[in-house]
Amino acid sequence: MNIGIIGLGLMGGSLGLALKKYPKKYTVLGYDHNPIHQNDALELKLVDKISSDLNEMKACDIIILTIPVDAIIAISQDFLDISKNCTVIDFGSSKEKISSSIPSPIRQNYVTAHPMTGTEKFGPSAAIEDLYSHKTMVICDIEKSGEYQKEVALALFRDIDAKIVFMGAKEHDRHAAFISHMPHAVSYALAQSVMKQEDPKSILALAGGGFKSMSRIAKSSPKMWEDIFRQNKNNLLESITAFNTEMQLCQTLIEEEKWEELHQWMSQANQLHKIL
Amino acid sequence: MNIGIIGLGLMGGSLGLALKKYPKKYTVLGYDHNPIHQNDALELKLVDKISSDLNEMKACDIIILTIPVDAIIAISQDFLDISKNCTVIDFGSSKEKISSSIPSPIRQNYVTAHPMTGTEKFGPSAAIEDLYSHKTMVICDIEKSGEYQKEVALALFRDIDAKIVFMGAKEHDRHAAFISHMPHAVSYALAQSVMKQEDPKSILALAGGGFKSMSRIAKSSPKMWEDIFRQNKNNLLESITAFNTEMQLCQTLIEEEKWEELHQWMSQANQLHKIL
Repeated sequence: MNIGIIGLGLMGGSLGLALKKYPKKYTVLGYDHNPIHQNDALELKLVDKISSDLNEMKACDIIILTIPVDAIIAISQDFLDISKNCTVIDFGSSKEKISSSIPSPIRQNYVTAHPMTGTEKFGPSAAIEDLYSHKTMVICDIEKSGEYQKEVALALFRDIDAKIVFMGAKEHDRHAAFISHMPHAVSYALAQSVMKQEDPKSILALAGGGFKSMSRIAKSSPKMWEDIFRQNKNNLLESITAFNTEMQLCQTLIEEEKWEELHQWMSQANQLHKIL
Repeated sequence: MNIGIIGLGLMGGSLGLALKKYPKKYTVLGYDHNPIHQNDALELKLVDKISSDLNEMKACDIIILTIPVDAIIAISQDFLDISKNCTVIDFGSSKEKISSSIPSPIRQNYVTAHPMTGTEKFGPSAAIEDLYSHKTMVICDIEKSGEYQKEVALALFRDIDAKIVFMGAKEHDRHAAFISHMPHAVSYALAQSVMKQEDPKSILALAGGGFKSMSRIAKSSPKMWEDIFRQNKNNLLESITAFNTEMQLCQTLIEEEKWEELHQWMSQANQLHKIL
């Protein structure tokens, strides 16, 4: 099978690496606007071949879209002439706008998915072989995908050892806002507030594991997250408001020296260890 | 040398483990109010011996205080009769109140330090041998410590491979509020807001590395953090206000769809990767 990966960053590059395990089953073609990414992907052996011809990509059996979510919507307008058996899989982090923007004549060609994995790094050099291994792959609005495309996608996801979860796109976007998108906004705000108040020397000297893990995802790609925040704006604002309410409560309990209540509030947060 | 560790949780237990490398140099005596901790510490071989006699602890060459910061201040009132050559080292996360509360006749016996390391786990079973290895140890107000005590503490810190940084207690508390204490408040608020809105099944299914690292320290000990928040109240409130200002800015930029400014704000946060 020919697999065409459009977008050779962390997600696309890692998929290419994961598919190396099946050299007879999959031939991987890579496509990226950025010539540096093209060279890096070849040098790092993330893909078997680079193409700069979108028509060559469209002739693949499976097309993977690992590009920012706005670009997924834009490029899909060019896919009206793909073959009936082509399977297009997008890895966007927000799903409702993507799911509803795919032109209806080719909607059944798409399997719209969100891998719940990643790192703060980006570009081809960030790719790692086991990024998807034993991680959740959320597949959204599967009833809109063709039966054949569903089988192709599931087989591919099994090959990269992903754990499959099915969910409606609308439901996904609400959950993702709370569990992924808002925490990214929080991390960016944390990094901003600390860098504005503290000099680099103090940050380096004093940062323990807590600050490092809290600020890690503030290093994530602004282009990618700008698009996600735009596409999931309403859910995101709702989740930010819910977070701000808790932060405000914490602040008030400290200001008013209500230490017992603060202790109880922290103990409730502790319950997270029963889940994760 | 006899070392008496008072408080056999993550910090005290890990110090005991780290000192195992020097069986001829250090004999480690452990003390803890909690009988379960006493048994666990012995079974896990964190200490050579358990004592329930505070006078026996006070007779040690070095006393380590790895208990919550309020308890450090309280127990120091009982130390007025320690010997002239005794060295007391506390590992509290807030330093100004501790530094100024030590009774003046024994102030020179103290070296007041803050190891910039830890995990979200607590209790003797959380102890790990290399917790202090290559991590920063901030020593505060060293000019108030005796020359002999300073040498004893530095030798001990060298033996556990800590990196030494000297700082005034007042300056420490301001930095620590931004780089450690406020991020803990943020993590507790994040865990609270997500658990109130999301069911455990969705959290487990959808939590990627981002949420896991952002919420990890929300599992930290409420008793320990209640005390730190109380002792460092003013700096903490200032840092929470600075964080809230950034969070508010992020929210406004999304509400008003100022995507370019949002992108720029995230790019600025990205600069953190140049430091950490």
